[in-house]
Amino acid sequence: MQNYKLTIEYDGTNYLGFQVQAKGKTIQGEIEHALERLFREKIRIISSGRTDRGVHARGHVINFKVSTDLKNRNIRAALNTYLPRDIVIKKIEKVASDFHAQYSVKDKTYEYVIVLASIRSPLLQRYAYCCNYDFNVKAMRKALKHVVGKHDFRAFASKIPSDKNTERTIKKATLNFNGARLAIRLTADGFLYNMVRNIMGTLCLVGQGKLTSDDFRNILRSKDRTKAAPPAPPEGLTLLSVHY
Amino acid sequence: MQNYKLTIEYDGTNYLGFQVQAKGKTIQGEIEHALERLFREKIRIISSGRTDRGVHARGHVINFKVSTDLKNRNIRAALNTYLPRDIVIKKIEKVASDFHAQYSVKDKTYEYVIVLASIRSPLLQRYAYCCNYDFNVKAMRKALKHVVGKHDFRAFASKIPSDKNTERTIKKATLNFNGARLAIRLTADGFLYNMVRNIMGTLCLVGQGKLTSDDFRNILRSKDRTKAAPPAPPEGLTLLSVHY
Repeated sequence: MQNYKLTIEYDGTNYLGFQVQAKGKTIQGEIEHALERLFREKIRIISSGRTDRGVHARGHVINFKVSTDLKNRNIRAALNTYLPRDIVIKKIEKVASDFHAQYSVKDKTYEYVIVLASIRSPLLQRYAYCCNYDFNVKAMRKALKHVVGKHDFRAFASKIPSDKNTERTIKKATLNFNGARLAIRLTADGFLYNMVRNIMGTLCLVGQGKLTSDDFRNILRSKDRTKAAPPAPPEGLTLLSVHY
Repeated sequence: MQNYKLTIEYDGTNYLGFQVQAKGKTIQGEIEHALERLFREKIRIISSGRTDRGVHARGHVINFKVSTDLKNRNIRAALNTYLPRDIVIKKIEKVASDFHAQYSVKDKTYEYVIVLASIRSPLLQRYAYCCNYDFNVKAMRKALKHVVGKHDFRAFASKIPSDKNTERTIKKATLNFNGARLAIRLTADGFLYNMVRNIMGTLCLVGQGKLTSDDFRNILRSKDRTKAAPPAPPEGLTLLSVHY
């Protein structure tokens, strides 16, 4: 059995999320379906993680094992023929048998994009959260600094059992602003369920002046989910890359 | 009767084009349907022009006349509630009764975007033509210069009756390249049917080295549609603005 690592891009708009569900279209479901068509056996993929309904990915990583004589480029071409237009295998690599797309992760980088628009934008809203606020970007930058480092992110985690370890390390947090578009990137050793979107939702309240950056830090320290804002919408979020 | 000028943005992916057809979804159809819901009468809009199936617009302009006491912002808000998510009225203005969205046009600007990608990209392909060529951008720039000025563009016009005037003036043509993305903008007093996409299709052949920039100029001069390339795909094209 050869272990394969795949790098995948997808537009998550029309999917229930990455992980297979009892009903409805998922990214995992589409990929496993394509693998089954190609190899004529059921293959379970291992994913670097799950993205929520409507979240996109530029470099999601998965792995799976199979015995085959096919060349990498032919596996990729065949899978891309079977996959729908909004999912693509960008890269396929042979990896050592102990490579595990989830356990071997060193860090992941997500980007959240906010577009400042006085009205919804059909051409931007698919890959950005469009909103009509006069954001205080300086305050947002200040608040964002508080997430960097090792913290218990329980306040920003949705549906987390109380006995689960919710410590994560955010290695890098950047905010890019060009006058109309905010792009926030977070790199961490791992992310809790809804963590980026919950941080973004709360950060938007700082941007609107409803919270100060000190309030933001206190919410993080409180470890209390009810203190933080609801998650920001999924369309603004893209998993950029996973590093091993 | 008050004359209203509307500026519209839309994602053309799911439409047969701007103009109403016997069957199927069109931008005009959706707008006239929203107007009828609001004003409870059939209103025919006048459009600055027609965009093809799958072509987008950031600043398409239309006008229509109606008698109403409603304020501009309330008309806009109501129409945007009735319109589908991929069409939006960005701006509404009262204009003089002789303003005509088609006849009053001074010039229009289109943008065509090409993304150089070794594989299709779910996150880029909706608003760009993704292709895997190592374009000679210098040759493309040289060819593009030939379209500027007043010319008979018959070689780049699809389905044009032989007695129709096919002279147009391209006032400006620019090509922006950042290493992975080509954005070509054309400003003209008017465009013939499929003109931008036919120019782009032929320009791509120059980029691929299949034609020289002299060949390109000779095709323009030939006034012979069969000499030029087929139209480039619609998803790369966006009507940016219309000036009056």
